[in-house]
Amino acid sequence: MIKEIKIQLRDDKREIPQDISKVKFGKTFSDHMFLMDYNSKDGWHDARIVPHGPIPIDPGAMVFHYAQEIFEGMKAYRRPDGGVQFFRPYENIKRMARSGERVSMPAMDEDMFMEALRKLVEVDKDWVPSAAGSSLYIRPFMFATDVGLGVHASDSYLFCILTCPVASYYPEGINPIKIMIEDEDVRAVRGGTGFAKCGGNYAASIRASKRASEKGFSQVLWLDGVERKYIEEVGAMNIMFKIDGKIITPALNGSVLPGITRMSSMELLRSWGYEVEERLISVDELMEAAKNGKLEEAWGTGTAAVVSPVGRLTYKGEDFTVQDGGIGPVTQKLYDGLTGIQSGKVEDTFHWMEKLEK
Amino acid sequence: MIKEIKIQLRDDKREIPQDISKVKFGKTFSDHMFLMDYNSKDGWHDARIVPHGPIPIDPGAMVFHYAQEIFEGMKAYRRPDGGVQFFRPYENIKRMARSGERVSMPAMDEDMFMEALRKLVEVDKDWVPSAAGSSLYIRPFMFATDVGLGVHASDSYLFCILTCPVASYYPEGINPIKIMIEDEDVRAVRGGTGFAKCGGNYAASIRASKRASEKGFSQVLWLDGVERKYIEEVGAMNIMFKIDGKIITPALNGSVLPGITRMSSMELLRSWGYEVEERLISVDELMEAAKNGKLEEAWGTGTAAVVSPVGRLTYKGEDFTVQDGGIGPVTQKLYDGLTGIQSGKVEDTFHWMEKLEK
Repeated sequence: MIKEIKIQLRDDKREIPQDISKVKFGKTFSDHMFLMDYNSKDGWHDARIVPHGPIPIDPGAMVFHYAQEIFEGMKAYRRPDGGVQFFRPYENIKRMARSGERVSMPAMDEDMFMEALRKLVEVDKDWVPSAAGSSLYIRPFMFATDVGLGVHASDSYLFCILTCPVASYYPEGINPIKIMIEDEDVRAVRGGTGFAKCGGNYAASIRASKRASEKGFSQVLWLDGVERKYIEEVGAMNIMFKIDGKIITPALNGSVLPGITRMSSMELLRSWGYEVEERLISVDELMEAAKNGKLEEAWGTGTAAVVSPVGRLTYKGEDFTVQDGGIGPVTQKLYDGLTGIQSGKVEDTFHWMEKLEK
Repeated sequence: MIKEIKIQLRDDKREIPQDISKVKFGKTFSDHMFLMDYNSKDGWHDARIVPHGPIPIDPGAMVFHYAQEIFEGMKAYRRPDGGVQFFRPYENIKRMARSGERVSMPAMDEDMFMEALRKLVEVDKDWVPSAAGSSLYIRPFMFATDVGLGVHASDSYLFCILTCPVASYYPEGINPIKIMIEDEDVRAVRGGTGFAKCGGNYAASIRASKRASEKGFSQVLWLDGVERKYIEEVGAMNIMFKIDGKIITPALNGSVLPGITRMSSMELLRSWGYEVEERLISVDELMEAAKNGKLEEAWGTGTAAVVSPVGRLTYKGEDFTVQDGGIGPVTQKLYDGLTGIQSGKVEDTFHWMEKLEK
């Protein structure tokens, strides 16, 4: 439990977007943010909800130099009864602790974290949109605030939660995306930070994504950093394939992000009777399946997009169309299944949802 | 050329440390800092020198989430004649541009960058210490300032230069350090960002350094991320060995930082007639040489420490003493040679030094 969360409401309320479909992902922030400080002497302290806005930070703070920073991405949904619910928040809380361990940052008590999430969303409850496919995107993050240029773990950190009302991550909705298999840059390697949601992984990915975007692709598909032959993940998502009737997704080998939508998708698919394999899958195996017509479907899974069908794959200049560039039946069923549970329109038999109202 | 650098001097001057040996590395900042903004529309603009201190930054700024941030480390020295000189500043300027290219950040015109360095050090000239081994450490860095949670290159950046009077990086001075060869965590991989001075590489390194420090080691020695068998670099330095009369340093393979002290050391050593090899060197070769008594010397090179003798190496629990734990003759000669040129006590036959006074 947090001793006390001080709340300072803003006087100049921002305008809540009326048409959520016009809101660009992660660009419109709710009125308030949660902040909490840490140092090794006092532990977590000074929990507060304040108007979202700039805060004074010394340019000598370690975060600007050594990227000791981690984050999470999660969502809260407006139920048909008007209430609000979180999708598997404790999974994000646990993952943030694992990310922190990799880059020597302190974990927060799980109940304390959940309390912060509840209180902040409660304060900005009106910002949770209700249109189909919309949600409140929640971004908890933490960064090193020690001022100094020596390279070592910071002693002090700022923990922050921002929230953004969002429609769908991809402006085109659940339309199939085109992805390019990246064979030059590497995002992560076993032993590195690939499994952690830390900033450096994303900085490493930007150049390839930019090049792919310039060529008309939505995302890149990363290969492993050791052999450059095994499929790892897409820019902002995990990846799944339906090959010859079976569903295959890259195993968590240390450099792949352990996605919560990935995990949930596997649980849901298995509950429907699909065979799901987590294993190494080489780009050669994938290309072979595509050539032989055995690659039936491909989709990405992630918090932002939930499920994104992949309509086209390109590798070393060779182009493959998946499911005739359309949305496959399993992809569609998975999207409907997940978003149904998230929005409260389908019964939550997995007990994934955590209501805002205790 | 920068159109105009606005200068706002501080009223409350800080106290310049009298005894530089008591100053902890990177913890004491000079009075002022240089700031300059970038966006794609206006390019670089609003160059200014202002009192060093916190600046308001939105927590939604991309730097806190995706670590789009790069930095440099360089030094200015007080000459015996009282003047001030920079050590190979254009090499740092060029490297920062290469780092930026890897993480999709804009470069700055070289002369503009040099002008900023000159003007800032000129303003805080009194902060350049004169004691033996001391210098003004200069930290140019740049980070993404776009506010938004989409993962892509930021459109806007803040470029900043901080300076710190420093003694020696290691409190023990040029005393030999103990290093541990890391066989669990990986810092960088070919295709990744290892050659760039970007924050993510350092965040990835902190846990191993902390574990090594808890076991009594100063630094870790990294192995390559692909085969985990080739020597790459030490935490904050490149590494060189003298084996059987020859000097060997890991080749720049994409995951090793192209150190400016490394490059300068090789030039100096070759000018003295030493054979210097840049090549792959496996940990097995190194251990073999240590066992056979052929590992004559080992040292790290870097801006902060210049040259650090390695007195002990540990790998998988096996311990090797180098040069009886003392300072080898080549290590000492290299340290004296480099610091002699840097401080202006030895003739700069390489034309490495750039005087502050034009």
